Amino acid sequence: MPKVLIAGGGLVGALNACFFANRGWDVEVFDIRMDIRKMEHVPGRSINLALSQRGKASLDAVGLKDYIANSGVKMYARLVHDMDGKTVHRQPYGQPGEHIVSINRRHLNEIMITEAEKFHKVNFNFEHKVIKADPRKKELHVLDLNSDQLHKIKGDLILACDGAHSAVRRSLMAIPHFNYSQEYIEHGYVELNILPKNNDYALEPNVFHLWPRGDFTLIALANRDKTFTVTIFAPFKIFKEQMYDDKSTLNFFKKYFPDAYNLLGDAHILETFNRMEPQTLLNVKCSPHSFGDCILLTGDAAHAMVPFYGQGMNCGFEDCLVLSKILNKFEDNISKALAEYSKTRVKDCHTINDLAMYNYNELKDLVNKLGYKIRKKFDLKMNKHFPSFWIPLYSMVTFTQIPYSEVVEKRAWQDRVLSRTFKTILILGTISIGGFIIHKNQIMRNIFNKP
Amino acid sequence: MPKVLIAGGGLVGALNACFFANRGWDVEVFDIRMDIRKMEHVPGRSINLALSQRGKASLDAVGLKDYIANSGVKMYARLVHDMDGKTVHRQPYGQPGEHIVSINRRHLNEIMITEAEKFHKVNFNFEHKVIKADPRKKELHVLDLNSDQLHKIKGDLILACDGAHSAVRRSLMAIPHFNYSQEYIEHGYVELNILPKNNDYALEPNVFHLWPRGDFTLIALANRDKTFTVTIFAPFKIFKEQMYDDKSTLNFFKKYFPDAYNLLGDAHILETFNRMEPQTLLNVKCSPHSFGDCILLTGDAAHAMVPFYGQGMNCGFEDCLVLSKILNKFEDNISKALAEYSKTRVKDCHTINDLAMYNYNELKDLVNKLGYKIRKKFDLKMNKHFPSFWIPLYSMVTFTQIPYSEVVEKRAWQDRVLSRTFKTILILGTISIGGFIIHKNQIMRNIFNKP
Repeated sequence: MPKVLIAGGGLVGALNACFFANRGWDVEVFDIRMDIRKMEHVPGRSINLALSQRGKASLDAVGLKDYIANSGVKMYARLVHDMDGKTVHRQPYGQPGEHIVSINRRHLNEIMITEAEKFHKVNFNFEHKVIKADPRKKELHVLDLNSDQLHKIKGDLILACDGAHSAVRRSLMAIPHFNYSQEYIEHGYVELNILPKNNDYALEPNVFHLWPRGDFTLIALANRDKTFTVTIFAPFKIFKEQMYDDKSTLNFFKKYFPDAYNLLGDAHILETFNRMEPQTLLNVKCSPHSFGDCILLTGDAAHAMVPFYGQGMNCGFEDCLVLSKILNKFEDNISKALAEYSKTRVKDCHTINDLAMYNYNELKDLVNKLGYKIRKKFDLKMNKHFPSFWIPLYSMVTFTQIPYSEVVEKRAWQDRVLSRTFKTILILGTISIGGFIIHKNQIMRNIFNKP
Repeated sequence: MPKVLIAGGGLVGALNACFFANRGWDVEVFDIRMDIRKMEHVPGRSINLALSQRGKASLDAVGLKDYIANSGVKMYARLVHDMDGKTVHRQPYGQPGEHIVSINRRHLNEIMITEAEKFHKVNFNFEHKVIKADPRKKELHVLDLNSDQLHKIKGDLILACDGAHSAVRRSLMAIPHFNYSQEYIEHGYVELNILPKNNDYALEPNVFHLWPRGDFTLIALANRDKTFTVTIFAPFKIFKEQMYDDKSTLNFFKKYFPDAYNLLGDAHILETFNRMEPQTLLNVKCSPHSFGDCILLTGDAAHAMVPFYGQGMNCGFEDCLVLSKILNKFEDNISKALAEYSKTRVKDCHTINDLAMYNYNELKDLVNKLGYKIRKKFDLKMNKHFPSFWIPLYSMVTFTQIPYSEVVEKRAWQDRVLSRTFKTILILGTISIGGFIIHKNQIMRNIFNKP
């Protein structure tokens, strides 16, 4: 059986391990961290993730869907909070029943590692730092952090699942024709918590809470333990100029998010802001995703995106599923599979990266605009009556597995249809009014100019 | 005195060494190659470079201008070669006397190294591979290729002059807020030579020879030894599909560049194409160029560009001059100087990167279009009569030191003036014609309706 070397044992690395375990391949995973199942606190990125159709389908393919979906909290709508601290507006995500799942990164990761390890040909090497990959020798260079020994390990396939700052990708930067960009947006984020109130959720749990305030925004997602993970997104400039000390920070929360402020509490807000700096948000695009006939970038290593469409993890999980299907199609011919993967997947990943940037505007601002609300309601109405003919953009991304690039093509088609319909109505309207005026003039003439 | 560590002893690294030697700083340069003055053949990038005002001014600042300019060949115009192999069209670069200089990369580099080494505080460490830079410890990690020993060297300022694939830059990729992109264009290039004919230049030496053929193009620049360096630029697709074997390659040259083909000769063309693959062309942009208070990216490490404006080296040299002036301004306060440098220089570098891409279209195609030729002539006429008021785009880039970003602003202003003038003429013309028609009708009426 072929051997796959996986750099990174995070969400995408661990899921890839499950996929290749199921294929019967030899699987070696290398992760710089110690086994997260033995850690008290796991450092790293955001706690909460929104699992949707693409992620679920990928988990389903390795038998994990129900197990994982049941350990999250379902969210059926956005609940938009006004500045007054009282009024809320509900915006359903899709048709009744359609939902996304708020899920805990660490829990999800642990389940997948345990699941993959059930296969005897799968081996997780923790505390192993990936240094580089050599596409010609088909080697991964890995440093054992305990022994300080460098190992050069040969494999048939090397998967880079080592995140936005991928060491594998960095070692391939000088390969001709590798196009790459990384872009930090001007916004950063800080994560806080709302604790349970009287042993229950302090806010409605089955919705995505949103406090859009133009250039900055606050969100809250429920956890199974009845807490909420709360995230504030704002330009670094605003963090610096309007939340520069204890007083200004509390005032900021009090002014813009009064209801959330009451639930967070002064002590917790200050403790968090004094403990940590706002974190950066990064957009990574590259092309191709494959190198030679043995290396493939997947997950954030290939397409780290801003979190505003909730698709980062879902897209990474879909990478695993797409790769698996392509390997099936080419009967494990790695060289052909990688070429095909890069050919089809790059444009889909570029698209969701762009959509995530676009959706940032929606989250922070558009949700409060009338035109946006009308279109949203119209789309959902159309979708209800013509479910396979008219699917709203958000639903196509979130509740289907239509390739991202096709999603955007379909949306462009919808826009054209609407624009044409609008023009036709305008023309017909003008003709009717014109006809009415002519008709009315005729009547007037008939009255006054009786023969 | 402060100590500067320079990664890379190529053109920009060696010139920076001259600048800092003149400042009286301790200078350590690290280059992966052996001393190029002792090498028979220097591997690496293109042989010929076009030195223009920005480069000259920078060389002048360290006393090298005349020495170097005199070792090149002056070029006063483009000479465009038609497909028939006979007709040529001359397009002056600027006003009579204005010229650029075709210069040899290796020769230029050798002179600068020798010049810098005259200072006893300057040390060139050849066969030393730069591994990474540490902005917190202000260290450069360098591997001595002879002893295989890794040295961690401390400095007050670290300059990355290690080219488009800069190791220093690569080691800083994960630093928050570092935006970066690298993009390969679809064109590659192959370099050839035309030998002297009867002991003299086989083509007119004091021009830039150009064979524009739409999607691909050939250029030739004279050398002091009466040879020409000839470069063909074409999409990789065309190399693959139209120059795939001996016969097709010769036919291609014969068909599109008949005069050049005769001078190159079958044997030389085939030997070159069989020896080497077409080389890639890379566009690198990043922001900021400085890290903390000790690291600065300059030259190709900060802004590798496609070669179509002949500004890659000139911009790199100007980096050295700009840095030197800013250090003067801040009296060697490195931290303040780096912040100021990044603030002003990044936008200029982005601009010339974009202009270089834009000029590719000009070189390969536009030079043959009527509208382009008219504008070019008009600009030069205006420039002759109003030399400080109206400077053509090419001249501003090539013959002045106006910051690149201002160049583009000035050009946009010229375009607005032209557009407004054109509209005014059109309106006045319409009024005149209208007046004439009314007047004519009046006359006709006077003729036919005599009272």
